[in-house]
Amino acid sequence: MNDCLSWSARDLITRLQRRELPVQSVVQACIERIEAAEPGILAWQHFDAAQALAQARALDAGATRGSRHGLHGLPIGVKDLMDTSDMPTTYGSPIYAGYRPAVDAACVAMARSAGAVIMGKTVTTEFATFQPGPTRNPRAPLSVPRTPGGSSSGSAAAVAAGMVPVAFGTQTAGSIIRPAAYCGVVGYKPTHGTLPLAGIKPLSPSLDTVGALARSVDDAAFFVGTLARLPLPSLAPLPQGRPSVARLRVALCHTPYWDRATGDTRQALATAARLLEHHGARLTDLSLPAHFSALNTAQIDIMAYEAAAAFAPERRTAADRFSSAFAAVLAQGQSIDGEHYFGARIEAHRARHALDAMFADFDVILAPSTEGVAPEGLQGTGDPVFNRMWTLLGNPCVHVPVGAGQDGMPVGVTLVGRAFRDTQLLAAAHALECSLA
Amino acid sequence: MNDCLSWSARDLITRLQRRELPVQSVVQACIERIEAAEPGILAWQHFDAAQALAQARALDAGATRGSRHGLHGLPIGVKDLMDTSDMPTTYGSPIYAGYRPAVDAACVAMARSAGAVIMGKTVTTEFATFQPGPTRNPRAPLSVPRTPGGSSSGSAAAVAAGMVPVAFGTQTAGSIIRPAAYCGVVGYKPTHGTLPLAGIKPLSPSLDTVGALARSVDDAAFFVGTLARLPLPSLAPLPQGRPSVARLRVALCHTPYWDRATGDTRQALATAARLLEHHGARLTDLSLPAHFSALNTAQIDIMAYEAAAAFAPERRTAADRFSSAFAAVLAQGQSIDGEHYFGARIEAHRARHALDAMFADFDVILAPSTEGVAPEGLQGTGDPVFNRMWTLLGNPCVHVPVGAGQDGMPVGVTLVGRAFRDTQLLAAAHALECSLA
Repeated sequence: MNDCLSWSARDLITRLQRRELPVQSVVQACIERIEAAEPGILAWQHFDAAQALAQARALDAGATRGSRHGLHGLPIGVKDLMDTSDMPTTYGSPIYAGYRPAVDAACVAMARSAGAVIMGKTVTTEFATFQPGPTRNPRAPLSVPRTPGGSSSGSAAAVAAGMVPVAFGTQTAGSIIRPAAYCGVVGYKPTHGTLPLAGIKPLSPSLDTVGALARSVDDAAFFVGTLARLPLPSLAPLPQGRPSVARLRVALCHTPYWDRATGDTRQALATAARLLEHHGARLTDLSLPAHFSALNTAQIDIMAYEAAAAFAPERRTAADRFSSAFAAVLAQGQSIDGEHYFGARIEAHRARHALDAMFADFDVILAPSTEGVAPEGLQGTGDPVFNRMWTLLGNPCVHVPVGAGQDGMPVGVTLVGRAFRDTQLLAAAHALECSLA
Repeated sequence: MNDCLSWSARDLITRLQRRELPVQSVVQACIERIEAAEPGILAWQHFDAAQALAQARALDAGATRGSRHGLHGLPIGVKDLMDTSDMPTTYGSPIYAGYRPAVDAACVAMARSAGAVIMGKTVTTEFATFQPGPTRNPRAPLSVPRTPGGSSSGSAAAVAAGMVPVAFGTQTAGSIIRPAAYCGVVGYKPTHGTLPLAGIKPLSPSLDTVGALARSVDDAAFFVGTLARLPLPSLAPLPQGRPSVARLRVALCHTPYWDRATGDTRQALATAARLLEHHGARLTDLSLPAHFSALNTAQIDIMAYEAAAAFAPERRTAADRFSSAFAAVLAQGQSIDGEHYFGARIEAHRARHALDAMFADFDVILAPSTEGVAPEGLQGTGDPVFNRMWTLLGNPCVHVPVGAGQDGMPVGVTLVGRAFRDTQLLAAAHALECSLA
């Protein structure tokens, strides 16, 4: 029965809706995969097989759900930054050890209402910032552990290890794209504001974005599209070697941080560009205006100012249990005054408008996802230097794995879409994915 | 000791910081005012005199707080949409009767850290939408009750009745400006995102904005400015009849909804325009581009779509305890697909950029706040028709009371500032206020 885990999310759900197999067997297959692989990965902050099976039994006992339950039986991972009324929620901090929220996060409730099975809570870094959890990158050998990236560490690792087909992530700087890149899975950060933040521990609401880690572009698109009621196209497998990119206009953007890109990242970007061009896409070079070079700093300042505000309660009552890294972020934020913060937001508005105008000349931007492959060790989670700017701008981003770099570790690229044009972005990402197949 | 309630917030805090009087005596004065007036107003969802006095005693027992505690001893009201760890929090819904959150809302914690005394929780309409609470407008006779407006009903009424000098409000459509207008107090909705939303029940995060109800522009500016670390100017009383508006460029905007304005509102706008002009401001007429006429509909659609998402948990578990009015909002939101929602947000972005460019020609916009004075009865809270557009655009707004209309009820105007130019907006609002004195 384990082969059901290799089906696409669309196929899996269609067969479950037709009762070709019970939800319980799919969930049981996930449980077996988790129990086998978890000791070497530590992707889960909370996992209870009986609790997952109980949800599956309830779905199997119900009426066929039909279109109103578009995720019937889909097993998912939920980042432990998101409230769950039936599972503990730690936000990756000892302050919230054993905390049990009264109400689900809105995106979790939406997934439940659509028929998804919550397999458990995946490890997040502390409050979705930089202090790592215990999770190991499933693509690295146990003897030489590497970070899975963060902050959606457990979600990326769980998907990479085949434990669940899809998992929720959130991104404020680079917390979906970076772990997707390091673990070799697809990461999809929708346009800012697409999925609800209610019931997710806020870090910096101008930036915080809910998205998905998945095995394929289509799985990510199907999952998010169902929840947001976006009519995302069915991204069926294209004939190999013939992706439909003939009219796609791709802008290759090295970003102001190109000197940080390793050979692996340069190679991945070149490979993606070559493949897209080979299949008919028109490539141009995009040089960003000089004022874009200030955007990473603006993102850092906005994130710190808003975090210092959002964590005012914990600063009052539990500051001694912050990691020193997180305390430093809050102290930096506290040192920023409101006018400086407003200045950073004005910069962001200006660049958003400028970028939107540039999109008249192309459909998607092709850019680096990370400096390179996942760094060795578990003390850090890598650097979001290539992600901060796009998160600040709010544009949708998809990480597409492109191959292997140093030590066989995965590497890939980011496609950036025009704001609110997620549908077109996902089609382009799907085409790139197919051209690599 | 009761005259301390007539001092400005700045004066009050300065004297408290100097220990010229104890916080307890100020809080006691508020308690007496509340206990005397509350039976006819019902502004408070939760009020416990002993709890307020305990906070005052703790402040009196502490060291002099100095600049880090810029609100030392200031008694405030907190809208019951905001989490409080030591007081029940209902969000105006029977679903949350008796609910006690684990953590304060961020803005509440910031106020506590600044030395404010939380006097209690003020009545909100159900989930900050349109189903009223019990609060009566303090400016209307008991025999002919009128709505205080909503959703910040209790905050506006408590300030109008002199129970507290300042209270938190939130606005998603018109929930600060409208109750301020109906109750004859100042309402200040800062630029979207100025104060943190963490721990406030989300309705529509693209629109939800924390602000203040206060007796004067300076009190509102001082309160919000202290929390946001905005260097808002000290708006000291200007010599009567000589407000400093000589170089102020004011754009008079009737908005696309002018046919909804009653004689009272038309008169208030004309009075404000005449006074500003008399004192040297340069007035021009602002005709908004045609596409601005779609913005109220865009605001309604965005609010409904985001509310349907944010309330996914309650829709699953407690939908039978929604009012029919709120259920209708959620049903409308559920009928909107993601592409339509994105379209509304694109419209908003386009208009934001257009309005920002228009601000090259003026400093503030003068516009109506409400259709007219507070409607009779307690079955509704009035219509936010004149507020929705500005909330969607995110610009800062101040309601300034201008005089009396029908039956002596208060009426006033809205000044709208350029985004992130709250400082200039508040100075202009202060000048208008002084010209009326």
